Amino acid sequence: MKKIRIGVLGYGNLGRGVENAIRQNEDMELVAVFTRRAPESLKIATEGVPVYPAASVADYKDDIDVMILCGGSATDLPKQTPAVAEYFNVVDSFDTHANIPQHFADVDEAAKKSGKLGVISVGWDPGLFSLARTYSGAVLPDGRDYTFWGRGVSQGHSDAIRRIDGVLDARQYTVPVPAALDAVRAGNNPELTTRQKHTRECFVVAAEGADLARIEKEIKEMPNYFSDYDTTVTFISQEELDRNHKGIPHGGVVIRCGKTGASAENKHIFEFRLQLDSNPEFTSSVLIAYARAAYRLNQEGQTGCKTVLDIPPAYLCKEDGGYLRSHLL
Amino acid sequence: MKKIRIGVLGYGNLGRGVENAIRQNEDMELVAVFTRRAPESLKIATEGVPVYPAASVADYKDDIDVMILCGGSATDLPKQTPAVAEYFNVVDSFDTHANIPQHFADVDEAAKKSGKLGVISVGWDPGLFSLARTYSGAVLPDGRDYTFWGRGVSQGHSDAIRRIDGVLDARQYTVPVPAALDAVRAGNNPELTTRQKHTRECFVVAAEGADLARIEKEIKEMPNYFSDYDTTVTFISQEELDRNHKGIPHGGVVIRCGKTGASAENKHIFEFRLQLDSNPEFTSSVLIAYARAAYRLNQEGQTGCKTVLDIPPAYLCKEDGGYLRSHLL
Repeated sequence: MKKIRIGVLGYGNLGRGVENAIRQNEDMELVAVFTRRAPESLKIATEGVPVYPAASVADYKDDIDVMILCGGSATDLPKQTPAVAEYFNVVDSFDTHANIPQHFADVDEAAKKSGKLGVISVGWDPGLFSLARTYSGAVLPDGRDYTFWGRGVSQGHSDAIRRIDGVLDARQYTVPVPAALDAVRAGNNPELTTRQKHTRECFVVAAEGADLARIEKEIKEMPNYFSDYDTTVTFISQEELDRNHKGIPHGGVVIRCGKTGASAENKHIFEFRLQLDSNPEFTSSVLIAYARAAYRLNQEGQTGCKTVLDIPPAYLCKEDGGYLRSHLL
Repeated sequence: MKKIRIGVLGYGNLGRGVENAIRQNEDMELVAVFTRRAPESLKIATEGVPVYPAASVADYKDDIDVMILCGGSATDLPKQTPAVAEYFNVVDSFDTHANIPQHFADVDEAAKKSGKLGVISVGWDPGLFSLARTYSGAVLPDGRDYTFWGRGVSQGHSDAIRRIDGVLDARQYTVPVPAALDAVRAGNNPELTTRQKHTRECFVVAAEGADLARIEKEIKEMPNYFSDYDTTVTFISQEELDRNHKGIPHGGVVIRCGKTGASAENKHIFEFRLQLDSNPEFTSSVLIAYARAAYRLNQEGQTGCKTVLDIPPAYLCKEDGGYLRSHLL
């Protein structure tokens, strides 16, 4: 069997996750890693796979079936995904919700022109959580959905703390409020403010002699990031942070409660929960499944941009329809 | 806007559920109900909707976009779904797992011949639970999935008890074993026997003077239905059964634990849970969402048989792609 030839652009946590995920899928092979760093400075985990400069991707357009973009949503992907879609089927994890329509249009135009297929905003949110919101909303129109994130590390919030004067390192956990979760699971469809849904736990390493009260105040009053939340700040040593807070766990839950019946007398709770030891590795695993779908859809002649909402679940699986109907349906 | 014209074949719990669900979806209308009973004996809930004999469906082939089949899987659907697919797009809830491949082939042949589209095995299991098994398996190939059902009423098991001599009425609940659920949620991927996964609770109304010990023994030793389970039997009065056990709740959970990482060091738990006040009403709501998909796919020229695994989630929604990308992705 001919394997699906995968390229990876960007070798951070996500790129390494994709590299690992490919080894779990025998119908795929990693062909090359592309980086904006000096290629010779990069040591990747897979023996015998070359590292090339990001600028040279076009040279390999006949050697790669799907390029997986592992850059960031803020500045990398808005440019990279449409540019790379001129040469390859592409999959990315673009997650700036407000800019998805523009990104979709850009990738759609590039991929239609090149005859390739792009899948954007793949991962768990956006991604699998989007699927949960879509399926539950279609099935229970008289209802309401809630998304809770955590307990898990928010990279963006951790970075925001690190930018405060006197902070050496920090790790921020987003935590759903148990009472809010209970109210939603009970099917009460409550009105919940931002503060009622999540709390934020910050573990901070301060420089020696730094003004801890001032740092705590700056964190708690930071607009957008913390001021709308009940936030706790705990100062710890670098050793403790390295020992207890180096992982990147995350997860969350999508819950929809809907009603049916002649007088809406019956309640139904739809709940989808993820609990992830490694946020980037799980996201990478979703990217790989959608890379398979991108390849297969393009083989069938489909082009342009798609999201997880547009792709039949069977396309994610290496098994054929007959097998899926017998074993999974 | 032209509404999607729905017909219902069979007016039991499922048919009534479909009738209710249509009222929650303003892009649909109920055009007619078909029954094998005498049409004039049937009083349906929706004013002004006619009831016709099941044998006359072909007369209405230009008036109905999708026929929803609300019969049983044992004897009705294997014949009805392919027969009705000669005239209409069809959706059914066929749930005899072992016979799905044959049913798929029969409906596929009929629908390809007529240029219609059929979606079979729609509901929650098979249906939404199949989706959970498929998505989780594609994303976490190094893992294992578990399906637990309940706490909920099994109609088949209740019927089996009612056939015992001296039993007037009965209600059977399937209940997941908490310790098994805990072990799976902890990511231990345990080996579980049938007995370790579920218990069965039976509430039985016996005839006056009946031999209760004999009835209990017959239940507990019944092969396939009860002998492989820890079963409890509680005798109650008809009044108590009518008061406390008349609902048809059900639900369950699909859980997959998978591993990722260079040495499989990271665990991920994927959990999809349903808690349903009314099993038939929820199933009906899923049928209606897939009726929309069947109609739209056929409008695009697709024919033959499909399952939930073959249908992009966006096709279930009345909103267009742009709206879904902005609001649900």
